[in-house]
Amino acid sequence: MSAYFTTIAGQVSFAPGKFTKADLARGEHLLAGLNCFEPGQSQAVHAHAGADKFYLVLEGKARMRVAEEEQDAGPGTVIWAPAGVPHGVVTAHERTVMLIGMSLG
Amino acid sequence: MSAYFTTIAGQVSFAPGKFTKADLARGEHLLAGLNCFEPGQSQAVHAHAGADKFYLVLEGKARMRVAEEEQDAGPGTVIWAPAGVPHGVVTAHERTVMLIGMSLG
Repeated sequence: MSAYFTTIAGQVSFAPGKFTKADLARGEHLLAGLNCFEPGQSQAVHAHAGADKFYLVLEGKARMRVAEEEQDAGPGTVIWAPAGVPHGVVTAHERTVMLIGMSLG
Repeated sequence: MSAYFTTIAGQVSFAPGKFTKADLARGEHLLAGLNCFEPGQSQAVHAHAGADKFYLVLEGKARMRVAEEEQDAGPGTVIWAPAGVPHGVVTAHERTVMLIGMSLG
């Protein structure tokens, strides 16, 4: 067990009702997290005042929205949501795992 | 071309002399970047006052250091470096691609 090293594989989990969120690491200034979607699950469009955020799709495929833009995103796609800009997951087409980075404080 | 969607594959590059850095996205509060190492390349241990940072190894394998802890890290490993804590890449064992998330401002 380490405070500094963790693995994605150890944190992935899915739930039938709603996508899951897990913190990988959380500091005063930054959050690293994981969002896991079953096919058909979504995340309502929302915005964070004063916080920038990105998603990195690690596995699967999902339709992502930022502002007025929508794209299907697969592994290796980075989705950037600047502070105040609405963003969300329209629908997961497959089981989808995303890393999240978000500024805090 | 989109301001919100980008791919890792389009940003990966290696250089013989030194590891490369690329910004994937940069806002007022958060940086998403890429660090790419040829085998044997390293990043000197350093610290960021007031900024948290994480690495996610996407490809390859590298020996990572945070504070007094060292581990060989492969794909799917997240390395967490809280503000003020020294961290670096001791050596890349293979061609290694890492995503970086770092708080700004």
